[in-house]
Amino acid sequence: MPQDDELSAFDAATTVQRAEGGGLVTELDPGWDVGGGILNGGYLLSVVGRAAVLESPHAHPVALSASYLRAPAAGPATLTVVPGTAGRTLAHSLVTLADAGGPALTVQATTATFGDDASAYSQPMPDVPPVEECFSLAEHRHLAPPGMQVPGLSLRVDTRLDLATAGWAFGEPSGEPVLRAWMRFSDGREPDPLALLTFADALPPTSFATGDFGWAPTVALQVFVRALPAPGWCLVEARSSEIAGGWVDEDYRIWDSTGRLVAQSRQLARAPRRN
Amino acid sequence: MPQDDELSAFDAATTVQRAEGGGLVTELDPGWDVGGGILNGGYLLSVVGRAAVLESPHAHPVALSASYLRAPAAGPATLTVVPGTAGRTLAHSLVTLADAGGPALTVQATTATFGDDASAYSQPMPDVPPVEECFSLAEHRHLAPPGMQVPGLSLRVDTRLDLATAGWAFGEPSGEPVLRAWMRFSDGREPDPLALLTFADALPPTSFATGDFGWAPTVALQVFVRALPAPGWCLVEARSSEIAGGWVDEDYRIWDSTGRLVAQSRQLARAPRRN
Repeated sequence: MPQDDELSAFDAATTVQRAEGGGLVTELDPGWDVGGGILNGGYLLSVVGRAAVLESPHAHPVALSASYLRAPAAGPATLTVVPGTAGRTLAHSLVTLADAGGPALTVQATTATFGDDASAYSQPMPDVPPVEECFSLAEHRHLAPPGMQVPGLSLRVDTRLDLATAGWAFGEPSGEPVLRAWMRFSDGREPDPLALLTFADALPPTSFATGDFGWAPTVALQVFVRALPAPGWCLVEARSSEIAGGWVDEDYRIWDSTGRLVAQSRQLARAPRRN
Repeated sequence: MPQDDELSAFDAATTVQRAEGGGLVTELDPGWDVGGGILNGGYLLSVVGRAAVLESPHAHPVALSASYLRAPAAGPATLTVVPGTAGRTLAHSLVTLADAGGPALTVQATTATFGDDASAYSQPMPDVPPVEECFSLAEHRHLAPPGMQVPGLSLRVDTRLDLATAGWAFGEPSGEPVLRAWMRFSDGREPDPLALLTFADALPPTSFATGDFGWAPTVALQVFVRALPAPGWCLVEARSSEIAGGWVDEDYRIWDSTGRLVAQSRQLARAPRRN
């Protein structure tokens, strides 16, 4: 757990500051990569979410829809927030994250402020073994196939896979594109809506479970935050419905430690080529 | 079925034309409403999809993410398409639909061109009774509760509800926020990717199945088209995962007449207030 007087790795890596002249700037951290120097799309969305909230009368990101135009480099980047309509309960904006190479992602953001509302209806959390019986990605990174780089992301986001969905790590892919894992930040920083934006794209590609270990670059990603998460581990499930024509979808649901659904995401990615 | 020399109702209502000066204009059709003069969000997205394709080297809308800023009026509207990055397989753009009152929705659009690729993995279609054993919304519109207006949409999109999810129409809501229906255009116009954008928001609110008959205005809607649909009826399923804090999600999956998943959508809407 980070000390009170120091920022957690996540808060440091997603810091957004106001530059002279009023624009927003950030320093993209190379440590949040998925291999090959490519920064994780969820991490980038957390940076964007922080910028959206900074320029909003509301406290939390509720709905973010991102188009990934190109992979930005680690290092300095700018955030441009164009306010849209705003009302008593929510505000819209359009956020562009750009590096020296130009715009990297454009995001439609809706912000609001969550209270402590109870659920009127909630999809139940799947039954998953406790954390200590799950498979730590970080602890088993020596098992990575030759040539596969260990993503920095897996060191910063503690990911414990349900063994029922981890057969691919032992050379026995299930063939069903589903992954489930307990997740929290490695330094113990508790989850909040900004963290959920990272968690919503932090599992390995679901195609790993079908034995395809290529990179699946995100084209479009939408995340809905549904409630303030309770402290502790989140359960994150990713599932694909259709793999065809070079495209794959990934559907995430995230429950907090009390079993409440706190976020959902859906992305469309380019399917990895079959080896 | 419309004659060869006349436009189907859908094609007429979603016509986008180039005005003098090069801008794109449309005439929003009051007949595609969900009651109270409010135009269906899926219908609006089809108009936007047509504009995105017109300004793209690619033929089909693949991923559209819309923020609904305000409900536009029927009548003349403009479409502004700002091109983003474009590559060999896909192109991004940002489309704004505006009426005399200003911008009504902003949409991030990704276009591509579908081939006849087979599925590498496909979630199977749920088991649903045949069309003739389902419940026609249009034929039973006299059953609408007093004060509830019959949506024009239900006359233009032939919607046949699986009776297992239609209890609410008989005063017996199931309590589970799931609706399933066969769907096609009433005039027999066959489905295509633009049509799927309308189908992806064309069911009644899932909250009808929990006995809440209020309007659930869409805040954000994302649609992925996954393949060219075969001719005939599509099966459309909508499901909510979480209703809390005045928000409800709706998750759509659409299969074509061959049982292939051809589209998915997810929206966040304001939950209707309980009566």
